[in-house]
Formats: sequence, structure tokens, C-alpha cells
Amino acid sequence: MKTSRLKKLLADIVSIDPHRLQCAQRQLDDLTKPPGSLGRLEELAARFVAASGKSHPRVEKKVIYTFAGDHGVSSEGVSAYPKAVTSQMVYNFLRGGAAINVLARHVGAEVRVVDVGVDHLFEALPGLIQKKVALGTKNIAVGPAMSSSELSKALEVGFDLAEEGAREGIDLFATGEMGIGNTTPSSAIAAVVTGAPVRLVTGKGTGIDEETLQKKIRVIERAIEANQADPNDPLDVLEKLGGFEIAAISGFVIGAAAKRIPVVIDGFISTAGALIACELNNAVKDYLFFAHCSVEAGHRIMLRKIGVTPLLDLGLRLGEGTGAALGLGLVEAAVKILAEMATFSGAGVSGRER
Amino acid sequence: MKTSRLKKLLADIVSIDPHRLQCAQRQLDDLTKPPGSLGRLEELAARFVAASGKSHPRVEKKVIYTFAGDHGVSSEGVSAYPKAVTSQMVYNFLRGGAAINVLARHVGAEVRVVDVGVDHLFEALPGLIQKKVALGTKNIAVGPAMSSSELSKALEVGFDLAEEGAREGIDLFATGEMGIGNTTPSSAIAAVVTGAPVRLVTGKGTGIDEETLQKKIRVIERAIEANQADPNDPLDVLEKLGGFEIAAISGFVIGAAAKRIPVVIDGFISTAGALIACELNNAVKDYLFFAHCSVEAGHRIMLRKIGVTPLLDLGLRLGEGTGAALGLGLVEAAVKILAEMATFSGAGVSGRER
Repeated sequence: MKTSRLKKLLADIVSIDPHRLQCAQRQLDDLTKPPGSLGRLEELAARFVAASGKSHPRVEKKVIYTFAGDHGVSSEGVSAYPKAVTSQMVYNFLRGGAAINVLARHVGAEVRVVDVGVDHLFEALPGLIQKKVALGTKNIAVGPAMSSSELSKALEVGFDLAEEGAREGIDLFATGEMGIGNTTPSSAIAAVVTGAPVRLVTGKGTGIDEETLQKKIRVIERAIEANQADPNDPLDVLEKLGGFEIAAISGFVIGAAAKRIPVVIDGFISTAGALIACELNNAVKDYLFFAHCSVEAGHRIMLRKIGVTPLLDLGLRLGEGTGAALGLGLVEAAVKILAEMATFSGAGVSGRER
Repeated sequence: MKTSRLKKLLADIVSIDPHRLQCAQRQLDDLTKPPGSLGRLEELAARFVAASGKSHPRVEKKVIYTFAGDHGVSSEGVSAYPKAVTSQMVYNFLRGGAAINVLARHVGAEVRVVDVGVDHLFEALPGLIQKKVALGTKNIAVGPAMSSSELSKALEVGFDLAEEGAREGIDLFATGEMGIGNTTPSSAIAAVVTGAPVRLVTGKGTGIDEETLQKKIRVIERAIEANQADPNDPLDVLEKLGGFEIAAISGFVIGAAAKRIPVVIDGFISTAGALIACELNNAVKDYLFFAHCSVEAGHRIMLRKIGVTPLLDLGLRLGEGTGAALGLGLVEAAVKILAEMATFSGAGVSGRER
């Protein structure tokens, strides 16, 4: 694969400056509230400032990218829904009727739907970003999900969108995805990267029964056996066990971190993409806000591997970017605290006695 | 005290209809998402519908009531801030510079500041609701916080505001408070009502040091000893150990539940007020959404006594209604899911296979 662009982006990503974090915390401590009393909101605000490097931070332009792709492994019967639902939901997103549309409107964010690998030829549709790499991945239970050149293309989709978003002046990105069957490759990635047993990182996805769950676990075990991905080579894992939308998310967060634009990460599948990116360069995680902990088994294990605590725990397991939309609202709230609150001296409020 | 109005309101409050809950859940299951995949958002939406009894639920008009009062016990040196901060913060709220103003604007809610018992004579100020019962409570370490007639007045402040809000067509209420020293009466209420030892329900409030914490625990133990409030008589507990803003919150949630208007409850102090209301009639809790779990020791114990799981856990310990503002955004998001999402048949999306 053409790795030069990836290498350059990874080299551009640096950990956030602890001095900037401290400066932001000092600013927060000047505001009319007891120091630290806004808990994680203060942490979010300080990290947003340090990550973006802006002295007057704001979260005005917010965009959620919902990456869609199909999965050859869905032919193994690992999902509760037929594969056709991926493209049907893309139409639903474009008409504004899906959960992600409702929640994005609620937090004032735009949704951009990206076809990275749906098994359906879309006509030109307003709002659909057409970046199709192929009509779905191959069945990981018998061989690699994609070729090296396909992986490269899917990563580039993410790089390109992050760069275009940066040029547009987007303040905060968020990820989401749609792809029937995509908890299966995500669990496979989680198992190989974290070293956890497959059964501990495999859940019921959209709601399969116990029997199908057992089959899904066996399919993932076969996929890992068949592909022999190198746990120390994140790109090898992504190529052999991933999905086009997952790879695009990996590329997107790398591109965003290189441009210092923070990204709110959705649930289980988005975290699988982010995990690969963090394995490639651990500094990526400084630019990420993990929105929530999914009920999907394995999400917590991946989050622990990355070393982060998610913001919300609301029993979500839908994907699309729904958890990220809610997380985005919290990050925006945090940044507004820093930008809009009065200081003790400005408001004539007395300070601490003890 | 005049108990006839309280008795009538308590008698008006009925548990929500399980049939209505089921109907709302069936509506949610028709939407283009796997059943139950929006977790607690679905629970919030169903409960909002069942509580409000509206067939076309909406959360348009949202108001956060921030009740302010002073506390005689602050003379015991139990807070990190001087008592004057209560009135100084009221001015800050009215100028829009406090955290609650920023977060309320963020979620599109109005803040109404209610003086129930601040030790300061305010001039007529736009936005300030003047309902002063007295210039602060008496010192609970040596005797009752208030008289029966004062308790009655403070409860009526809450009843009146809930009734006026209902007439105005407010869809969702939220509570908040301001009062230097008010974690002390809240911990006293928590200890007496839940039966937990004082040290387990007493925390560092706005940020006192370890030595002051030990003093605060002793002050609360003295208050409980001096007042001998009857744990089985919630009004006796409130009168002897409460605060004017806490009693107003108790009255407010009772008034709101009687009018079937859901209320988002903020943190530790608001929960103490809500706890008294739930002890008077357990059906009150069906109308309450507990926004978050504070870091203040004892909050979790009160929430367990009421039998609820809060929505957020963000390490907040500020009060004012800040946690409630964020919770209010989640409840609104949940109601929008129910109101705005497409159905499977409407969107042409295939249903489950297994």
C-alpha cells in the first residue's frame, strides 16, 4: 500500500502540551464556581483547548460523519437484520428519519453520510458522499476482508474528509457508522488487538438470540484462525479483519488528529476504528472524546486498552453516531463554560475562606 | 401548619399507568432501530409520555428553578465560602454569568431564580422571584432550622411555582439551588431519612479540607442529637434539619407531580428535597428524572433509598441546577426520538430476520 501519506500524518500527530492543559485549568479556576466542581466538563474543556490549540475556543460547526459499508461475513448469518438494511438505512439517513438525524438536530450538528463500501449502487443523492471502495468486504471467516490497495483507499477516504473538514473550519468532528454485520469485524479486531478471548468481546449486536451469538463467536474464531493477522501490525489486523467503514474511521481520526481537530467517538464499531489509529500512534487519543460505553461486550475492553473513560453510560447499542451526538453536546457545553462564565473578580463574588 | 393544601396535592399524585408505558414502548419499537437499542433514552421517552399523559409529547418550554436560601449553620464554619456568596451568586445568576446560565442557554432552558430565604434584602430585580420566608434558617446545630409556619410557607413557594408553571404550559421543569452551607442540612436529612451514619453521607461540599470535614460531621451529629427529628415524619425532618430552598424543592416536586409535569432533579441538595417528597408519597418519583450522581458522599445513598439510577456520572458537585440542565437535554433528546423518528414501514426498511 501507499504508506507515505499515512506515515506523514502519523508523524504530524503530537501529544497535547501539558502546559496548555494547565493554562486552561487556571482559566477554569478563575470562574465563579468552586475549583474542579464541574468535574469532567472541566476536563473536556481543558483538553479541547489544549488539543485544538485555540486561545478562544468555540464549538460552532459540528459535523458527524456516518460511514457506511457492507460485510461479506454477513452471509454467515451473524446479524439479526438482512444486509439490505445497510443501504435502506442510508436512504433513511438522507431523508432525516433515523435516530442519528434526530439527535444531530437536537445538538445542532450536521450529519454527513459517507458510502465507503455499501453493497448497493446509489444514484447521485443530495447529502451522500460517494467514496465507495468496493461493494462490501469479503467474508473474513474464510480470508482477508480486503486487499492492501482497498485498505489504502478506505484510509484515504478518512484522510480526505478530515482535511476537507479542517479547510471548511469545522470545530468538532464526530464519527458514526452503519453496516449490517459490522459488530463481527469489530469484535475480531478487539480480540486480536487486546488479546481478549473472542467470547468476552462478542455481543448480541442489534439483538441476536443466544444461539446466533454462539455461531457469531465461532465465525469470529474461524476468521482469526483463517487470517492469522499480526497483533503487532494494526494495519494487517484492519486489512484482514476490518471493514471499509471501520478503516475509514481509522483514517478519519488520524487525519483529524494531524489537523488538531478533536473527534467525538461513538460506540463499539467506531471505537474499533479508533483503536487501530491509537495503536499506530498513541498520541491520537489526546484528540478523541469517547462518548459512551455501549452495552456491546468488548467495548469496555477496547476502551481500557486505549486507556480512556467514556462520558456516558446509557445502555446504547445503535451506532450511526447516536452516542457521539450526545457526547458532542457535552463537549460543546464544556467549552461554553470556559468561554462564557463570569470570573470571581468580574462578578464581585468572594473567594474561598478555607 | 396548614396541611390541607399539601394533603390535597399528595392525594392528587398517582403512579404512572403501566399500560401507557407499554404503549409508548410499542411506539418506540416501531421506529427504524433495533428494539431497545437506544437504552435509557427509550426509558426516558416512555416515562415522559406516561407521566405527562400527552399523546403528542414535546419538550419545548423548559424552565430551571434555582432556589436560593441561607443557613444559620454556616456560622459553625462548615463551608469553604463565606455566607455572602449566596446573595453574590444570586446577582451573578441574574446577570447570566454563572455556570447554570451557560448550561441552561446551551440546552435552551430558562433559569428562574427564587429567593426563598437569602440573608440579604434584594431590590426589585428583573428575573428574581421574591418569595423570601426569612433571612436564612436558624442554626440546626442548636435547634430547629425553621418554625412550622415557615416550613409551610417554604413548601407553598414550591406549590405556587409548580402551579403557575403548569398554567404557563411549561413541558419540563428542573430544580437547582444556591445556598452556602446547604450540603450540611442535606447530609442531616440524608442521615435521618436513610438511617446511614453521618460520616457516610457527609462530603466536602464546595471543597473543604479534611479538618473542616471532620468538624462538619460533628456539627451534623450535634444537629441530629439536638433536634431529635422523627425519621418516620418527613415534614418533621424537613422543619428541624432542612433549609428554605430544600423545602421549596420538596414543595415544587409535589406540586409538579400533582400537575403531571416531569421534573429533572439536580444533585445532592435537590435530591434531599426530592427525597422528602418521595417519603411523603412514593408515586412522586414516577415524575422525576434524576440527572446525575454527584461526587458528594451520600448522594448515591439517597438515590438508592428513592430507588432510582441517575442519568449522568460526570463528577459534578456544583449545584445551581447545572447537572439538571444536562439531564434536561437528554430527556428532550429522548422525547424527540419518539416524536421525530421514521417507522420501519414508513421508511421502507426491512425488519428483523431472527
